[in-house]
Amino acid sequence: MKRIAILGSTGSIGRSTLSVTEAYPDRFEIIALAAGSNVDAAFEQARRWRPSVISIAAEKDADLLRSRLRKEGVAAIEVVHGPSGAVRVATHPEVDFVVSAIVGVAGLEATYEAVRAGKVVGLANKESLVAAGELITAEARKQAKPLLPIDSEHNAVHQCLRGGRIDEVERIWLTASGGPFLNTAAAKFPEITVEQALNHPTWKMGRRITIDSATLMNKGFEVIEACRLFNLPPARVEVIVHPQSTIHSMVEFVDGSILAQFSVTDMRLPILYALTYPERIQSDMRFPVGDLRHLDFCPPDLKKFPCLRLAYEAAEAGGAKTVALNAADEVAVAAFLEGSIRFDEIPRLIEDVLTETNSGKLESIAQVLEADAQARRLAQQQVTHVKKFQQGRATSFV
Amino acid sequence: MKRIAILGSTGSIGRSTLSVTEAYPDRFEIIALAAGSNVDAAFEQARRWRPSVISIAAEKDADLLRSRLRKEGVAAIEVVHGPSGAVRVATHPEVDFVVSAIVGVAGLEATYEAVRAGKVVGLANKESLVAAGELITAEARKQAKPLLPIDSEHNAVHQCLRGGRIDEVERIWLTASGGPFLNTAAAKFPEITVEQALNHPTWKMGRRITIDSATLMNKGFEVIEACRLFNLPPARVEVIVHPQSTIHSMVEFVDGSILAQFSVTDMRLPILYALTYPERIQSDMRFPVGDLRHLDFCPPDLKKFPCLRLAYEAAEAGGAKTVALNAADEVAVAAFLEGSIRFDEIPRLIEDVLTETNSGKLESIAQVLEADAQARRLAQQQVTHVKKFQQGRATSFV
Repeated sequence: MKRIAILGSTGSIGRSTLSVTEAYPDRFEIIALAAGSNVDAAFEQARRWRPSVISIAAEKDADLLRSRLRKEGVAAIEVVHGPSGAVRVATHPEVDFVVSAIVGVAGLEATYEAVRAGKVVGLANKESLVAAGELITAEARKQAKPLLPIDSEHNAVHQCLRGGRIDEVERIWLTASGGPFLNTAAAKFPEITVEQALNHPTWKMGRRITIDSATLMNKGFEVIEACRLFNLPPARVEVIVHPQSTIHSMVEFVDGSILAQFSVTDMRLPILYALTYPERIQSDMRFPVGDLRHLDFCPPDLKKFPCLRLAYEAAEAGGAKTVALNAADEVAVAAFLEGSIRFDEIPRLIEDVLTETNSGKLESIAQVLEADAQARRLAQQQVTHVKKFQQGRATSFV
Repeated sequence: MKRIAILGSTGSIGRSTLSVTEAYPDRFEIIALAAGSNVDAAFEQARRWRPSVISIAAEKDADLLRSRLRKEGVAAIEVVHGPSGAVRVATHPEVDFVVSAIVGVAGLEATYEAVRAGKVVGLANKESLVAAGELITAEARKQAKPLLPIDSEHNAVHQCLRGGRIDEVERIWLTASGGPFLNTAAAKFPEITVEQALNHPTWKMGRRITIDSATLMNKGFEVIEACRLFNLPPARVEVIVHPQSTIHSMVEFVDGSILAQFSVTDMRLPILYALTYPERIQSDMRFPVGDLRHLDFCPPDLKKFPCLRLAYEAAEAGGAKTVALNAADEVAVAAFLEGSIRFDEIPRLIEDVLTETNSGKLESIAQVLEADAQARRLAQQQVTHVKKFQQGRATSFV
């Protein structure tokens, strides 16, 4: 019986994890949950899964949740809240495996503490590797516990890596759908609307990650994640566009063999893989191999998608630069979604923030959060600047 | 230093093996060679590689080779001949690894003896698995030594299988180029010429295997080989047509993940993989992943290619049926190449032989060879029958 904690239990990955564990009641037991701000969802999860402890973001929601659970007659569940509550969930002594799926830098501390507590961690929180990858992977190595990626690309790489040793890897090939603007001329990028950018061809995801897929920044983040997770320099992590997103990623070995992984595009599969690793267990998620017809590939266009180039540069610099890349991107995407900047201004804004960010090694999660806040301030200033500029000239800031 | 014996050193796989071992002189040492009937080639190999022992098929060639080596001043090389000579090479006490690459049933006994002697065997001899697969794999299990496949498909499967345990495999997918008649209407099959059939789209190979690729019998043999090598029933070994032959094969695991292997189409790669397993070492055989553009797939047409269906039936029956499949095919292909039967008569002839063959478990290599001779006689009778029929009526026997 594997005893599970989920950080971000009411989010998309969290709910998928619960749907996976529910399908194998003999194998998994839910011990601890950290929800977000949705009290109703947290209440339902607590009632249904009866964890030992549940955490929720706000203190007032914790009070509400506690009284609702008492009324329901399930007072045995400990209700905690805030960052310390999430850490309590992540480090619960009865837990073997922590699914890290809180979105954003909010997930950093609890993830780091889970690793420090010697838990096996399934990673879906992007910031854990993009912003704090050096710290978290160093700690996992120290603990000699695996970090198991829960996203289709790195999970695919993890699977392919079983075909050899890490020092037998020539390079990793991350596949990219190319997003909705793969075949749009760069000259048309200034006219791209929010609606067009939110229309991702293969995956249904949240708003920020959908925009990040349209700019290829998401693939850039994945390059950084791959570098940190598999301890490879950026030059050994390549991107290839594969519009069908059938093949999730590939590993090229030194002897010239390449292994590729594919499956249905269902997040429950990488979750199941991580939860059961090093075993594999029967699932109903069957890819109809006999129905395969065409797989297409092309190289990524780094001129058209400068976000990918910026990510490689940040990956090379490491430390505060990757923190700034993520923070500036989050601000830029929000500004695009609210109509404050144009689609083609997203990479320009990020590049400006990166230029103003000193590269430097970060020694603690606190330093990461500080660098994150600093980059957000810089990015926000840029957005304000663009807004003013647009009001004055009705044109771009660049 | 790995000490190598090569059965079939003057053939295509044998020569490729020598080219691989030559590239890594610190890793491999050639201890013993078994050549075919080409004395010049055997002499050159003996002079160059200085094995402890070399075997050649015919006794008179052994005498010739011995005297030529004496003249050359390399009298220290032991020259042997015939089946017992090949067994001497296969079981040489100084040898760790035996490459089994003699073409045809002639390779059976020496391969079996290599396995019995506890050698690690790299298998390129098809008959070892198609005709004697049950015997040879049982012996390898008894010796607890790996049988490492040296052909692109099974080598690919072997690599993909590293992503899980054998009891975690849902099925194996062997890819097939589809041969030159993939898009030819079945109605045109009676008119197919030898020249057309010898024109394989992706691999340059010997005449028999090229015809076997055109009828898809080669893929059928590979299904049987996969069943024996990986101990799976025929229902768990599927074929998918993939005209580019880029992906060499795939493994589908029970959780729904599929791993695929690809590489350049160069036999030196599976040879290197087998020779260095479980390690991988740097080679210059790089597949330009960034140049990938399109991969196409479609299901095989078992009506148009009855040889594949016959192979599945023989795989299911096992024993003498798979021996007969191989023997009848060899006779049928030779008859087609010499103009005695039509292309579409190849599967009919084989099916007739299979019908007349009693299924039965074979307990020794001698029994395998007996069943092989019996099937060849039956097949030859069929060819004679067709010839007579054609002389009388100038039409087909069916």
